[in-house]
Amino acid sequence: MANRKAKSVIQEFPLIRGLAGRFARPAPGLVQGIGDDAAVVKPTAQTWWHVTTDLLAEGIHFNFKSAAPESVGYRAAMANLSDLAAMGATPHYLLVSLAIPKALKPSHIFTLYSGMMNACRRYRVALIGGDTSASKNGLFLNITLIGTTPTQQALFRHGAHVGDLIYVTGTLGDSLAGLRLVMPLHKAYRSRKKRIALSSSHERFLIGRHFRPTARVAEGQWVNRQRLASAAIDVSDGLSGDLRHLCEESGVGAEIEAEKLPISVACQAYGQATGCSPVQLALTGGEDYELLFTVAPGSRRTIEQQARTRGYHMTCIGTIRPKRFGIQLSSDGQRRPLPVTSYEHFR
Amino acid sequence: MANRKAKSVIQEFPLIRGLAGRFARPAPGLVQGIGDDAAVVKPTAQTWWHVTTDLLAEGIHFNFKSAAPESVGYRAAMANLSDLAAMGATPHYLLVSLAIPKALKPSHIFTLYSGMMNACRRYRVALIGGDTSASKNGLFLNITLIGTTPTQQALFRHGAHVGDLIYVTGTLGDSLAGLRLVMPLHKAYRSRKKRIALSSSHERFLIGRHFRPTARVAEGQWVNRQRLASAAIDVSDGLSGDLRHLCEESGVGAEIEAEKLPISVACQAYGQATGCSPVQLALTGGEDYELLFTVAPGSRRTIEQQARTRGYHMTCIGTIRPKRFGIQLSSDGQRRPLPVTSYEHFR
Repeated sequence: MANRKAKSVIQEFPLIRGLAGRFARPAPGLVQGIGDDAAVVKPTAQTWWHVTTDLLAEGIHFNFKSAAPESVGYRAAMANLSDLAAMGATPHYLLVSLAIPKALKPSHIFTLYSGMMNACRRYRVALIGGDTSASKNGLFLNITLIGTTPTQQALFRHGAHVGDLIYVTGTLGDSLAGLRLVMPLHKAYRSRKKRIALSSSHERFLIGRHFRPTARVAEGQWVNRQRLASAAIDVSDGLSGDLRHLCEESGVGAEIEAEKLPISVACQAYGQATGCSPVQLALTGGEDYELLFTVAPGSRRTIEQQARTRGYHMTCIGTIRPKRFGIQLSSDGQRRPLPVTSYEHFR
Repeated sequence: MANRKAKSVIQEFPLIRGLAGRFARPAPGLVQGIGDDAAVVKPTAQTWWHVTTDLLAEGIHFNFKSAAPESVGYRAAMANLSDLAAMGATPHYLLVSLAIPKALKPSHIFTLYSGMMNACRRYRVALIGGDTSASKNGLFLNITLIGTTPTQQALFRHGAHVGDLIYVTGTLGDSLAGLRLVMPLHKAYRSRKKRIALSSSHERFLIGRHFRPTARVAEGQWVNRQRLASAAIDVSDGLSGDLRHLCEESGVGAEIEAEKLPISVACQAYGQATGCSPVQLALTGGEDYELLFTVAPGSRRTIEQQARTRGYHMTCIGTIRPKRFGIQLSSDGQRRPLPVTSYEHFR
């Protein structure tokens, strides 16, 4: 079973102690953080607890050739924050497991943690536990994030009804466009071998959206608190795939209107410069970490007015249809089934 | 960042659905299990929550050449159950993340989960969430286990006082002896090239202790409920190393009496057959998953009588000393510092 000869230049306990010293902080409800067999917390009264976990693998979800350790950590934490945003939850506690290859320097591990904590800072999430291990091949990073909502009050994938309006926060497709800008040898560009003509501000915006996404935690909490949504999911694998999950869990179909998809000016410019369809980017691009949620039609005015007041960017992109309708995209009065082209890195 | 071309023969969603269908069950307090952005649970009143997480890497913590997937899963879950046992907690919820290499068959993934659920069955732990991902190199398995104790009532590594007695459950060294029996090419035997003369019942016992360890969950709960222990830790990395953690967190030293170490008849026979010192096995062997805890001397009679009544096997192996004493092993009236020879697979 265990390979008892496995060694590493990085020793576990000094490493954990160093990380704990640097990143662990007292936090409300935290009884015991890093340094025991388990982290111990005291749940607040009348709360539901939300637990999400994500395992990221080097070469599958990230690549140190194109991303710095800080950015890998930042994005990994943001993916989990986005999962809690989609529940309408407030994030509280973080546990991080790392399997570390020998080649990775301790300083890189620290910056990886810095990235995670930078992503979590505005939410005051506390690092309360984790595990470190050797890895023979590549870095593996598992994050477990715990948050809360009041009891009986959370956003689920199930609950969408026929006739509900489909909303999405922010803009879609930016992250994929940004990824392609930093990976010039990406499949789509290999044949072109030319630089994409895009203003530097648009380029910065798209690359920023890829490396520095923002989970819509505040928006999720607000939608949940106001009980405005019948169902919700975050757009991490692409609108096309994530809408499908919401529809499956709710037992419904959906119609998306291509013309309504929120596409940033930068993404439109990227589309023009490259010949890519911005609609296609918006439908299939993953890792935007926007929220997709459904709202009863009677709440339309309320949500749009209140969102404007609060400065939240939300767009109605379609309508929930009966299950037999399937999931269709309408454009210029034409409807076609929405293909499942969203990225499956099979996580 | 994300390698958007990563594919696998195993598709995520059918896999998750299959696992959920096979292993997910309703559980007390469970609001939402597998199938949403996060698992949702309702904490019971007046509890502390205990969260532990462990990341296991193929080739480091396990090897499919010497262990079947079921056994890998079983032992991985048991390691986490043991962490909660050391807190005196009752385990409730399990989240499992897997990074799966292409070569691993779906049937192996199912038996891996079967192993985890077999380990958890007696504790009625519910699988409530997780994540699956591709892996380019080897299987990585992250378990997050959540349990509870009543508030203000848990076992910590800190809290041991000078004069407290040191107890350990069960017997020590068996798992390492069992590992060596199934790995005949283990370093210690390469030079001998001879079969170890050991009765088949002893061999079965030791191998069983390695592949089928039992976390001391009931013992931990009992010690915690009775408020008998001042500090506790589980013996997962070896007595020598784990005692050191307890002492460091408590700011004390310790004296262990070699003659008192609980060593099974089978482990003694193994020592005789191989020339290995059973005391050395007991001090350095990891993965016994016994509990090590400290008890005020005034509680000696209570704990020993009550443990006997309940059929719990517990042995007093030494005494907590002042910090300046360090950690020493006494044997035949001689004392020597206890070397830190416990296994660091650096997890």
